Amino acid sequence: MTELAAAWATLMTAAAGANGRRILDLFAAEPGRLGTLAVEAAGLRLDLSKQPWSQGDFASALAVARAAGVETARDRMAEFEVVNLSEARPAGHMALRAQGGSDDIAQMVETARARMATFADTVRAQGKYDTVVHIGIGGSDLGPRVVWEALRPLAPTITVRFVANVDPAELAQALTGLDPARTLVVVVSKTFTTQETLTNARAARDWLRAALGPSGDAQLVAVTAAPTVAAEFGVPTDQVFAFWDWVGGRYSLWSAVGLSCAIALGWEVFEGLLAGACDMDQHFCSAELAQNLPVRLALAHIFNRDGMDRPLRAVIPYAQRLRLFPAFLQQLEMESNGKQVTQDGQAVTAPTAAAVFGDAGTNGQHAFFQALHQGTDVIPVDFIAVARPREGDPAAHTKLLANVIAQAEALMVGKVDAAAPHRNFPGDRPSSFILMDRLTPQTLGALIALYEHKVFVEGVIWGINSFDQWGVELGKTLAGTVLTELEGGAPQGHDPSTTDLITRLKTPD
Amino acid sequence: MTELAAAWATLMTAAAGANGRRILDLFAAEPGRLGTLAVEAAGLRLDLSKQPWSQGDFASALAVARAAGVETARDRMAEFEVVNLSEARPAGHMALRAQGGSDDIAQMVETARARMATFADTVRAQGKYDTVVHIGIGGSDLGPRVVWEALRPLAPTITVRFVANVDPAELAQALTGLDPARTLVVVVSKTFTTQETLTNARAARDWLRAALGPSGDAQLVAVTAAPTVAAEFGVPTDQVFAFWDWVGGRYSLWSAVGLSCAIALGWEVFEGLLAGACDMDQHFCSAELAQNLPVRLALAHIFNRDGMDRPLRAVIPYAQRLRLFPAFLQQLEMESNGKQVTQDGQAVTAPTAAAVFGDAGTNGQHAFFQALHQGTDVIPVDFIAVARPREGDPAAHTKLLANVIAQAEALMVGKVDAAAPHRNFPGDRPSSFILMDRLTPQTLGALIALYEHKVFVEGVIWGINSFDQWGVELGKTLAGTVLTELEGGAPQGHDPSTTDLITRLKTPD
Repeated sequence: MTELAAAWATLMTAAAGANGRRILDLFAAEPGRLGTLAVEAAGLRLDLSKQPWSQGDFASALAVARAAGVETARDRMAEFEVVNLSEARPAGHMALRAQGGSDDIAQMVETARARMATFADTVRAQGKYDTVVHIGIGGSDLGPRVVWEALRPLAPTITVRFVANVDPAELAQALTGLDPARTLVVVVSKTFTTQETLTNARAARDWLRAALGPSGDAQLVAVTAAPTVAAEFGVPTDQVFAFWDWVGGRYSLWSAVGLSCAIALGWEVFEGLLAGACDMDQHFCSAELAQNLPVRLALAHIFNRDGMDRPLRAVIPYAQRLRLFPAFLQQLEMESNGKQVTQDGQAVTAPTAAAVFGDAGTNGQHAFFQALHQGTDVIPVDFIAVARPREGDPAAHTKLLANVIAQAEALMVGKVDAAAPHRNFPGDRPSSFILMDRLTPQTLGALIALYEHKVFVEGVIWGINSFDQWGVELGKTLAGTVLTELEGGAPQGHDPSTTDLITRLKTPD
Repeated sequence: MTELAAAWATLMTAAAGANGRRILDLFAAEPGRLGTLAVEAAGLRLDLSKQPWSQGDFASALAVARAAGVETARDRMAEFEVVNLSEARPAGHMALRAQGGSDDIAQMVETARARMATFADTVRAQGKYDTVVHIGIGGSDLGPRVVWEALRPLAPTITVRFVANVDPAELAQALTGLDPARTLVVVVSKTFTTQETLTNARAARDWLRAALGPSGDAQLVAVTAAPTVAAEFGVPTDQVFAFWDWVGGRYSLWSAVGLSCAIALGWEVFEGLLAGACDMDQHFCSAELAQNLPVRLALAHIFNRDGMDRPLRAVIPYAQRLRLFPAFLQQLEMESNGKQVTQDGQAVTAPTAAAVFGDAGTNGQHAFFQALHQGTDVIPVDFIAVARPREGDPAAHTKLLANVIAQAEALMVGKVDAAAPHRNFPGDRPSSFILMDRLTPQTLGALIALYEHKVFVEGVIWGINSFDQWGVELGKTLAGTVLTELEGGAPQGHDPSTTDLITRLKTPD
């Protein structure tokens, strides 16, 4: 048995022992529990003491991380080695936010960053635009969308509207009420061939041209690894911004993919975001595993997911401005680690990424929390809270804080009501608690980087490649076939249900 | 053994036999499969042939529905009997959209509806308002939000903005850029004491008063079962709209809770919504179980959830305008059926509501679909598609349709790639497919009613009360305690983690 297999077996045994144990009893049995299980770094405090593990279980989890080679893998990623084997690429997102390096990559990043800064400053200084329409999907959409929603009170003059879906309704809604003369269109696509993005980009370009004539193209901006294609599309060459194939879409926010945010929020805000992420990177790369926030968060997840057979997790930011963060994590976690083969092509031996869902608190309390408290499945929760408000009535913010604290407590402690079983709360529903002082560009950057690295650590322990996404290919291929058939060809080679749908939905001649 | 227990055991055995079976093989073995498993009612076509059940399994599932007394329970609900035992109430949402009844309830509903219509028409005719700010949370928020987002192209002159969260950021964002003189504030709270709603309502009232003086109160509207409290709050009594305790929050969209939508979208649109739901009600109440859409949808879910141990489900509307529908279902399903005791207080013997998550397609394809195709868990999907576009480029809509058909096919058929295991798709990932011709008030009403009744059928089979939500009580109680301590008292009686959080987050003196 390898060291990892042995450590894993020990951890699984420990987790099996946690079934039926009261978390509250662990606080009584372990006087140092809170001190051991809560730590702070890069402006984030992470309290894992409401998880079902004992301090001894936590030590067993750490042994798994060590045996899996998390430190070596982390260092290899940081050194820009090829960690994404199926695509033969590094995973360079840390380089995108590194400060003051001097190697070739650092210089390339610095040059690109300076170009972004100049462009963002120029657009803002011009005063010509009141709206940026950002067109991208998946990794070219969710990250910038989260940042924009989180920080938009900092953008008094320029608004960003996002368009992702190939459904033409989204673009139609986004363009409603806009003045083409005051609208900058930013198109983000690594290949500049993404079906959704190019469909929307063409329609947006036509909208500009219809109002402004050929000079409308001057209001197009592209972020792409295919600058020639973007230029042919009509984007002025000095408005094409590069990004690189060594950063995956869902890790690309830190590159020119964030340009719309840099324009609307200002370069200083974007720099703050990078700096916060860099803080977390430095912590991740230097802190010992036992004190390492991303490692801890990953281990708590693995303890629930693999040890206690809990295939989903809720993420509840008690901050309306972070309401899109669960959707961002859905992609980050499920696309990165929703895999069933290891880097060397073997079937995984343990379940990988749990499904992630969530909504802002307190809204979720009035929607699906019933099931968190009294459902038949135990669904672990990540709570995220912000100590100080940025806007609005401070007394309302205090109510928000009372709720997040109370929910974490209620889920754990439960309540016995033998006389009225429908009022009985089983308790022992675990949660992690992330606390930041304020929601700033820096803490937001640190929060996103925390989860990026958590996902990486899990991937290393499961032995999978967190940076590819082959699972999206089959659907794309079949969509091409079906599209041809909807547009005219006869459906061939499908099951009867699929054939029936194509026949019903064929475009009328 | 009761008839239900025997039928249930047969179904569970059948479902166990479905493990490892190829759904494609069922099409080959069952020539009439599509005809049996796809039916249409109230403008919705429901194809369940890509589910893992054989026609024989489907018959076993129907036997469970019969043995559980679904027909009797349905009729009792329709007859306004007390089906919500823990709260001793009927569940009267069908009465809210019934057409042409003559009993007391029908007359009460008709009177209320006429008042709503008059008010909505008057507000629209006045031309005074360009925005309705709708303040409510949970069931007073999600339903109207879904309707508004789905149908807003029909509202050329009045926009609705929604505020739910106690986080003051949401109200601050909603009020940004509004002219108080042209803003109507609609406050929706059954008790008129909901913490979040009243906190926001006070702030909105103050905002009106600050701009308009005491006459600002004339722009307040209340929807509540506590009219006196609303009047004391400052709402003009002729602008207080009632709803009743026999309709639960998450089933209340059809009452005056939908007033904001009726104002912005017009009364005819709201009537269309009611009519579509009523169509589905009539189908549900009259069609035999074997042909009954809500029953079928419920049974497919139970087959996966209980028979094949699949504790979550994705809902993916391929319609940007329905992007909030998964969040609505999250509440409807998880709050209604996330229970662990039966109506008579016994522990349930089978897992109840699966967790629901989702996003609009194609967006989800670029986010979490990796895990749907290649993750270690099988996550059933409900696909929802709209045959004809209402807006934008029809060619883009055809691409949307190509994608939804291809995704359902890809999930089921999979693809073997022995040479490159990371390109291997296991397939046999089931889906339901709901197709409507157009997204109209009628089809939207029918869609929502379809899921309401699906949830009810599941609840009957599981023996639980789908209409209460006691699981939200403990958190509310503890939040009251914690709030007192945050505002000044010393934290008492908590675990060390909770005490630590309260201490850190105490409002500075």
